[in-house]
Amino acid sequence: MKKINPQIISKSFRESVHSEILANQYKINIVGFMCNDDPAAKKYADYTKAACEEVGINFDLRIVPRVQIEDQITLANEDDRIHGIFIYYPIFGVERDAYIKNLVSPYKDIEGLNQYWASKLYQNQRFEDQNKKYKSILPCTPLAIIKILEEIDINVRNKTISVFNRSEVVGRPLASMLSHDGAKVYSFDLDGVLLFHNGTIEEIDIDREKALASSDIVITGVPSKKFEMIRPSEIQEGIVGLNFSTIQNFEKATLDKLSTFIPRVGPLTVTMCLRNSLRLYKNYFKG
Amino acid sequence: MKKINPQIISKSFRESVHSEILANQYKINIVGFMCNDDPAAKKYADYTKAACEEVGINFDLRIVPRVQIEDQITLANEDDRIHGIFIYYPIFGVERDAYIKNLVSPYKDIEGLNQYWASKLYQNQRFEDQNKKYKSILPCTPLAIIKILEEIDINVRNKTISVFNRSEVVGRPLASMLSHDGAKVYSFDLDGVLLFHNGTIEEIDIDREKALASSDIVITGVPSKKFEMIRPSEIQEGIVGLNFSTIQNFEKATLDKLSTFIPRVGPLTVTMCLRNSLRLYKNYFKG
Repeated sequence: MKKINPQIISKSFRESVHSEILANQYKINIVGFMCNDDPAAKKYADYTKAACEEVGINFDLRIVPRVQIEDQITLANEDDRIHGIFIYYPIFGVERDAYIKNLVSPYKDIEGLNQYWASKLYQNQRFEDQNKKYKSILPCTPLAIIKILEEIDINVRNKTISVFNRSEVVGRPLASMLSHDGAKVYSFDLDGVLLFHNGTIEEIDIDREKALASSDIVITGVPSKKFEMIRPSEIQEGIVGLNFSTIQNFEKATLDKLSTFIPRVGPLTVTMCLRNSLRLYKNYFKG
Repeated sequence: MKKINPQIISKSFRESVHSEILANQYKINIVGFMCNDDPAAKKYADYTKAACEEVGINFDLRIVPRVQIEDQITLANEDDRIHGIFIYYPIFGVERDAYIKNLVSPYKDIEGLNQYWASKLYQNQRFEDQNKKYKSILPCTPLAIIKILEEIDINVRNKTISVFNRSEVVGRPLASMLSHDGAKVYSFDLDGVLLFHNGTIEEIDIDREKALASSDIVITGVPSKKFEMIRPSEIQEGIVGLNFSTIQNFEKATLDKLSTFIPRVGPLTVTMCLRNSLRLYKNYFKG
């Protein structure tokens, strides 16, 4: 089993972002909003800051009370010295955080989570304009997963893929992107299985056992210990496994049966945000 | 204790919508989308249909598989024979349903749930245009609650109000509207208490006991049997109580201590949707 280090894949993307910023002397300023003082979140923010500095983007972390986040986003949207906005979720919870995601101007939304970009993604509109000059912004974690698969030469066309997680932030956009690229995707979530295929979504009557037995790639992102980890008996020999959850969703013995395992995507997620920052800056701000 | 029947309050609003439609010979077509065959949902749809017929609005119920709802909404948005869209939630769950709510064109959003209207509400922008010709669309249940309080001559200015529920559909917009009208609102939800006052939101360190003891109006909407019902010992004699939950949130003995009790708002919610339909039609479609 070959274990993939996302940090190594990340490197060339960061270098390319860095050299483009350097060559053009772009001055890109992004702001990160954090509404708590959780040490893990702070660590993640430090990590984002370091990544930004590495590629020459100026990152300003602002810790604000959660009741002020909406006003702060509105001010940042209007502030033409700010070119990108990054928000550390969760803040209030799923429902209100969805509102907050949509408050960020799409032209400053480096995480690609706004409804504006999401609806382009689901409709497979890969460019924002009719002249195909401005590429749409894609959400960072699903984009990172697609890029990893590309980098390790795994073509998803005509592949069968099981994805465990159908959040609007990762699982659903990922299933949609993979299916637009030609894969047949079984999307598992607490409310059942959906099949994403050829640009359509269908209810499908397939159980985990059958879906896993027919999968070329298994992608998991279930941050719960209640999730039954993927067992070796459930998968074919030599398939690809990827886990983007903070906790391990594959049994140890399952890993030995994989040809390739990607244990996390975090570093590449941040890199895709840097890449989105550059894209937004070039599209809408460089003047 | 005076018990308010929302059906009676509803009557004069419906008559006024009806006579305006009749006088102008408006032909308003709205479409309702339902993604299940749950008998309770079907009953609610029948009720909406009857209410529409009562005021002269044409209501077309379409039962569609949930995986087709997004395409169906997009088609309805583009169909100029359709003037309003009504959706029966839940469909997938909170996160994706938030996406679906925002897919409905704001100009056909008779429930007032789209981010476009929500952000106007939270910013207290009561008109859509600078000339103050087009009034903003408000979400139906919180609007119904405000209208009931107005109709029974309860002025919320300078009143202290406790609201149990802070969903984006009812509790938060309601707290925001009440505070814009001059009330001091303690908003309770699983993630704590917030104070809505003078157009701002603050974290506040107050417990249920103190908030209830100082409240002139108590509004509940907690659809859970785990919620500790409001007890008589917790409230002052002669205050106003309103419950918009499907289950009872006040103890029986508490009701005797109230001056006025509004046990449900359902019929007026539907009426406010009819009113919104008429407003949207006049604003954007009558040609």
